[in-house]
Amino acid sequence: MKFCSSCGASVAFRIPPGDTLPRHVCDHCGTIHYQNPKLVIGAIPEWEDKILLCRRAIEPCHGKWTLPAGFMENEETTAEAAARETLEEACARIEVGNMFSLIDVPHISQVHIVYRARLLDLDFRPGEESLEVALFDEADIPWDEIAFRTIALSLRRYFADRRDGRWGFHTCSVSLNDPPPGLIGR
Amino acid sequence: MKFCSSCGASVAFRIPPGDTLPRHVCDHCGTIHYQNPKLVIGAIPEWEDKILLCRRAIEPCHGKWTLPAGFMENEETTAEAAARETLEEACARIEVGNMFSLIDVPHISQVHIVYRARLLDLDFRPGEESLEVALFDEADIPWDEIAFRTIALSLRRYFADRRDGRWGFHTCSVSLNDPPPGLIGR
Ligand SMILES: [Zn+2]
Ligand SMILES: [Zn+2]
Repeated sequence: MKFCSSCGASVAFRIPPGDTLPRHVCDHCGTIHYQNPKLVIGAIPEWEDKILLCRRAIEPCHGKWTLPAGFMENEETTAEAAARETLEEACARIEVGNMFSLIDVPHISQVHIVYRARLLDLDFRPGEESLEVALFDEADIPWDEIAFRTIALSLRRYFADRRDGRWGFHTCSVSLNDPPPGLIGR
Repeated sequence: MKFCSSCGASVAFRIPPGDTLPRHVCDHCGTIHYQNPKLVIGAIPEWEDKILLCRRAIEPCHGKWTLPAGFMENEETTAEAAARETLEEACARIEVGNMFSLIDVPHISQVHIVYRARLLDLDFRPGEESLEVALFDEADIPWDEIAFRTIALSLRRYFADRRDGRWGFHTCSVSLNDPPPGLIGR
């Protein structure tokens, strides 16, 4: 951030009075521009014993598999975001169930939330950001080709809970030092 | 947002190619400026049968009681945010426990998360944004003077879980049409 989005003047980067962290501050109009973590919301769409995954048509991780997920928009709920992303990326309609995981990703200032969801029909196909959309049994999950650590973690936990017959809500934190997605849970 | 924070040119507000929602778009440098919901993170600091509340020294809801809570910062985890806000608003040290509630507040594009926490000592006092900090038994909670719906909801649910002897994780959504904080759970 170099310019004030309110008045167009140059901004400084310093700790405002009474604050503890440096902010982008506009000395012309007085606005303090805060920057905050973003929420990424996804779904695990279930159909019988299978779950739906999307193969990414965009960077990062072009060609890898992931759950339908994306940045939450203003004025929607987390559950609405999960349904919208599933519709956009897999052209699939879901009934959103319980929140399943919330994972902190502080090195990129994100929080990733995944919901369980029920796929309402088999009329899905790749959206603009997907190359391919498919249903997978646990045995067929392409673990070496999962796009993100948080998705691999959520999927490993999902199948563990399913084996245990007890669905929990799971929180954790991932860092750059954690194993890549293909090694998580191995 | 009127000006591009990257180059200082005027921004337009329209749907970019391939997108579905209008964004602030800079035609000079090409930047698309997304705006996303913010996370507000709080704690329920416990000391024996009491919990810690803060009386607000700032607007909105100056003079009303709330849990220590505030906007999550970049590069921290949700649990770190809960501990930091408790230190800032109540000068109190906590051990953060399990996530207790996540409440969608779409009309203001926020998501509110509250953790259970253990107060580590009684050496607390009001921070700069608090008038007063005190421990309350359930019977003494000033329900008519609670600042926010999401805090009232989390507190009602907290005492319900405590009575049931079973701690859950709770999600819900609040809107402007919901009762004010003083009437929630009555
Ligand atoms: Zn300005
Ligand atoms: Zn620009």
